[in-house]
Formats: sequence, structure tokens, C-alpha cells
Amino acid sequence: MSLTENAPSIAIVGVTGAVGQEFLSVLSDRNFPYRSLKLLASKRSAGKEITYEDKTYVVEELTDQSFKDVDIALFSAGGSISKKFGPVAVEDGAIVVDNSSAFRMDEGVPLVVPEVNPEAMEHIKIGSGKGALIANPNCSTIICLMAATPLHRHAKVKRMVVSTYQAASGAGAAAMEELELQTREVLEGKEPTCKIFRQQYAFNLFSHNAPVLSNGYNEEEMKLVKETRKIWNDKDVKVTATCIRVPVMRAHAESVNLQFENPLDEDKARDILKNAPGVVVIDDRADNHFPTPLEVSNKDAVAVGRIRRDVSQDGDYGLDIFVCGDQIRKGAALNAVQIAEMLLK
Amino acid sequence: MSLTENAPSIAIVGVTGAVGQEFLSVLSDRNFPYRSLKLLASKRSAGKEITYEDKTYVVEELTDQSFKDVDIALFSAGGSISKKFGPVAVEDGAIVVDNSSAFRMDEGVPLVVPEVNPEAMEHIKIGSGKGALIANPNCSTIICLMAATPLHRHAKVKRMVVSTYQAASGAGAAAMEELELQTREVLEGKEPTCKIFRQQYAFNLFSHNAPVLSNGYNEEEMKLVKETRKIWNDKDVKVTATCIRVPVMRAHAESVNLQFENPLDEDKARDILKNAPGVVVIDDRADNHFPTPLEVSNKDAVAVGRIRRDVSQDGDYGLDIFVCGDQIRKGAALNAVQIAEMLLK
Repeated sequence: MSLTENAPSIAIVGVTGAVGQEFLSVLSDRNFPYRSLKLLASKRSAGKEITYEDKTYVVEELTDQSFKDVDIALFSAGGSISKKFGPVAVEDGAIVVDNSSAFRMDEGVPLVVPEVNPEAMEHIKIGSGKGALIANPNCSTIICLMAATPLHRHAKVKRMVVSTYQAASGAGAAAMEELELQTREVLEGKEPTCKIFRQQYAFNLFSHNAPVLSNGYNEEEMKLVKETRKIWNDKDVKVTATCIRVPVMRAHAESVNLQFENPLDEDKARDILKNAPGVVVIDDRADNHFPTPLEVSNKDAVAVGRIRRDVSQDGDYGLDIFVCGDQIRKGAALNAVQIAEMLLK
Repeated sequence: MSLTENAPSIAIVGVTGAVGQEFLSVLSDRNFPYRSLKLLASKRSAGKEITYEDKTYVVEELTDQSFKDVDIALFSAGGSISKKFGPVAVEDGAIVVDNSSAFRMDEGVPLVVPEVNPEAMEHIKIGSGKGALIANPNCSTIICLMAATPLHRHAKVKRMVVSTYQAASGAGAAAMEELELQTREVLEGKEPTCKIFRQQYAFNLFSHNAPVLSNGYNEEEMKLVKETRKIWNDKDVKVTATCIRVPVMRAHAESVNLQFENPLDEDKARDILKNAPGVVVIDDRADNHFPTPLEVSNKDAVAVGRIRRDVSQDGDYGLDIFVCGDQIRKGAALNAVQIAEMLLK
């Protein structure tokens, strides 16, 4: 970060979590200009010291009084905290970039992937004295749409079938620790400790732990369905998703089948993706080298590969692709910081 | 197994491999009647002793002379061994149940899942003195079709989009050992040993290691496409697949999106699956309990859950399901032994 007079004052809510920590790292990497930085967390974490860019900060307890003189507040402390303190921050004139699902589907709250729909937040101006909420989409949605949108712009996606391979990080730092602990236990022949997840995660996989709704989809899957429609501003696009947790640490993968309204062959699709901002194409058939979670971990770009004409569809109206993206980075912290950067423009 | 005069003489080719070992276990579990048992493997393994049902066998080297007086030969030693020795066994009058892909797509060779298309092997009779080849489908195909076929019979599948979550076992016992070794290494902060797979498998996943064809699909995926058509005897059914290896030990999972010609609602689908042979339904939405690889490991039945109306399709013409099956058991050894059992009828 670069300390700059006239730059915004920043608050981070949930700084001790996996995404909160990544906010700091991304702000630093991108040399984000700021006037002051406030680190907020629950009472339990208040008082902890965090050294960041050669300065030591004391984590403050999040209260109703936390947002006086805050220009941009990056929230990642869960939906209930966002619901309670998001409106308080807005009331105090802050622009809240919220990583939770609390406000995503609210009318009037832009749901933004900067490479995809920057126009949705055009009306929100920093320094206007008027607070506002901007929602960060769900990680699976961001990663999927980073790859699907450039193709959608060219050939219009009619229907999309997504199967996810989601990492532990999506359930937070404690889930990553549990995966590691369980793996050690299983290798030692012990019963695995199940606290965050109700079942063995090590060397196993399971349907996403989000609650299952009456239509049989879990909340994670319906986020992909609904958020895609909102971000693309296309209420007719058809999406189905099956979300699965796999024993991977911090990057998600997604198998995406696309049906298009207009023809798009795989070579053109590959060209489009090679030129898409924030996307790298890893698609070496001869070398059997395609995106993996490990290869994108701690990286900004979403990787796309396995780009091929779908043999189950006629002509050039279908593609299969495989996408990997760092869940904590582009799936959460980076996307939020990019939103904040757009406010500076 | 039960030693019975007049029962067939059995040979197992590749007895020291993961599937070979499972052949023995399944034959024992199912009390398969036999007159004699011959354990065959490569020269390297010849001479090893295997104690099985209180009797010690010496593994014999597989040669052109191995199949004199063999009625049923269960092969699982890779495609090149099957190609070389399968015809030799047939020539000597044996019925070969081959787990490799060597003959699967050959016209005249039945490709059989006993619950799905037993009629394909009706013309093959044991004791006729005439040898024959019967192919065991690929593990992913078997597991998928165990769930999809009962629904297909009711509403006719038009198109199927499959994404797999495949275990280490599909690449053999050495791959399972490598996953375990790599996991220990990664947990100790060491570089993972990559011998079977070219990249880190522990806490990672990657596109299936089968060679990639000119259409961009890998061989594993095209097996699902082509074998489904052959097993269903329906050259028009449209299938696409994305096959991914996940760090799970021995059972595969598959996310399957189905488009039907005729309507089929999810309740009816659940009923159909509950009554399907070799299938168990695990579909508890309230408890978020669905099939997992761990829960089906070492089990015979294929588990199906997440049965729901596909929100991306109109009316009751689409379903999403999630399927798990033990790759070594129903995906290989059990299916082959069931084929052998049908020969006894």
C-alpha cells in the first residue's frame, strides 16, 4: 500500500480470517493508496497486533463507532456481521465492499466482477459523502464467469452446466487446518477430527456443506445460478450447478459445459480467452498440461484449459472448458480490492 | 469361492494388481463355484505365494500355455497383455472377461454391465468348448450407467453431461501408494515424489492423465461417450464428459446432468433408483447426507443422491444427480465376476 494524503481511509472487517489476511496481502501487492488503515475484528481478536508494511497495528473491536471517517470498508466476516454492520458503515458515509452473500441479490446493490460488469457500479462515487454497498460475488461465480463471460459476449451463452471442485479455503482458515489435521490423522490410522465439517474430508469429497433448499439445490449452487443472471443482467440465461468440496487447500476448479446461441469454434474461443483480462489459457494437449488448483494458488489470474468443441452438441454451438482460480484471491480478496480500485478512478 | 466338481476352472490374469486382488476377494465374498483356480501374472511376480481361502497358490508366469483347461479367465493386466493373451485364451476355449479397453469397442465383443445389458452376452455359453471375449466397461462408464440406465429406460436420455471425480485406484495400486507418499511428503514440507503422475497429486487435482485425442477429449472421456452408446445400443445418445483425478483413494464420484426425451420428475426418479438393482439412494437433504467416495469404498452398490429437477431445463425433462461407486469393485472386479456368474446360469 502507499500512504498518500488525499487517498481514502480504509477499514478491513474480519482481518484475522483467511480472506481478511489476503486483503492485506493484495492491497500491498497492488500498492493501493491509502490515508489510514483500520483493522477490525470480533471482540475475541481485538487487541491482537498485526505487523503490516513495517507498521504494527492493533486489531480493534468492530462496533457501531468503527466507521467514522472510513471511506472504503472491505468486509469479510460472514453474512450476519455484514448485515449488522454494513448498513452502519454506509450510514457513516463509507463505501462497503462486502464479500458475504448478505446483500448480493438485493436490488440496488451492484454485484461486481470488475472484468465483467464494471458498469454496474459506475454511479457509486467515493468522496461524495454518500455511503454505498457493493457486493463481491461468490467465489465459484467469479471464477466461472471470468472464463465464461468473454465467450458469452461473443456467442451468448444459452445454458451452462457447472460442476465444481471446491477447496477447503472456501470454508475459512479453520477448514484448511481441519483438512490438514484430518489428513495427518488418517495417515496415522487415527479417527479424523470432524469439527468444521461433519464427515471425513481427507482423501474424500462431499456435496457442498451449504444448506440444501427445497428445490434440492444447495445455497452454493443457487448462488451460481442467480448471481450469473444478475451479473450478466440476463434473467433468461439457464444455469445448473453441482457443488462439491474436494480435499484441496485453496483454489477451486470448475468443469463448465456451455451451450451458445451463436456459433463459436474452439480456436476462436481460445483466442478470445487468451486476450481476456485476468485470464490465462493453459491448454497444452500434447503435454497433457491443463489448469490445476495448485498452479493457480496465490495467483491473480483465473486459468482456463480443456477448451474443446462439445461432442454432444451439433456444430459449433457448444464448448467444454475447465477453469481453476484461487478462491481466496480472485474468488474473494482480489476481486474486492479491484472493486475498490475502480472507486479511485 | 466354493470348490465344486463340474464347476468351471478359473484363471486370473494380473492377480498381483489392485483389481486382480479384488477379483479374489469378490469371488470369495460371492462364494463363486470353481473346480480349479490358476493365478497368473508377469514373469516378475511368478513364484510369489498367495494364500487364499486357506490354500497357498504359487503365482504362475503368464504364457501361451496358461489357458489349457481354463473355462473362465478374468483379465486385468492392462491392454497390451489382453491383446496378446486374450486371443490365446479364446483359442484354447476359455471365456475371457477382460477388464482392459483392448476389445471394448470391437464389433462382436459384448460390452456388459449385468444390470444394464445382460442380453448382449446371451449367446455366449460356457462348456460349449468355444472360447469368447466379453469386455468389462471402463469404471467411469459402469458407475455412471448404473444410475443413468434405470432413468434412461423410463424417460430416454437424450443428452448427458458428466464431470468425474476419479480416485487414485483407477491408475492402479502404485498410484494409490504414490498419493499416500506424496501426501506425507507435502505435510512434512518436502517435494512430492512424482513417478506415476507427472505432477503433485496430494491436495491437488488434475485433468485425467489419459492421452488427449485430436478432438481435445482425453481417452477416458471418449470411453464414457462411446461405451455408453454401445452398452445402451443407442448410437444417437449424446454424451460429453470431463474427467478429473482427485486425491481420493479408491472410489469415483460423478456429477451427471441428464436431459430426457420424456418427462420424469424427481420423485419418480428417486423411486426408480430405489428399486434399481445394485443401486442405493443416499439423498437426505435435511441432513445434508449424500454419497461420498468414502462411504461407497469396499461396497458393491453404486450410491446415487442429489437427485433434483434441473432448474436450467423446462418442466420435468432434466435431472441432476451425483453418483459414487467403488472403482475397484463395481467399477472393475465385481462387474467382471457378475459377468462370470451370468455364464453359470
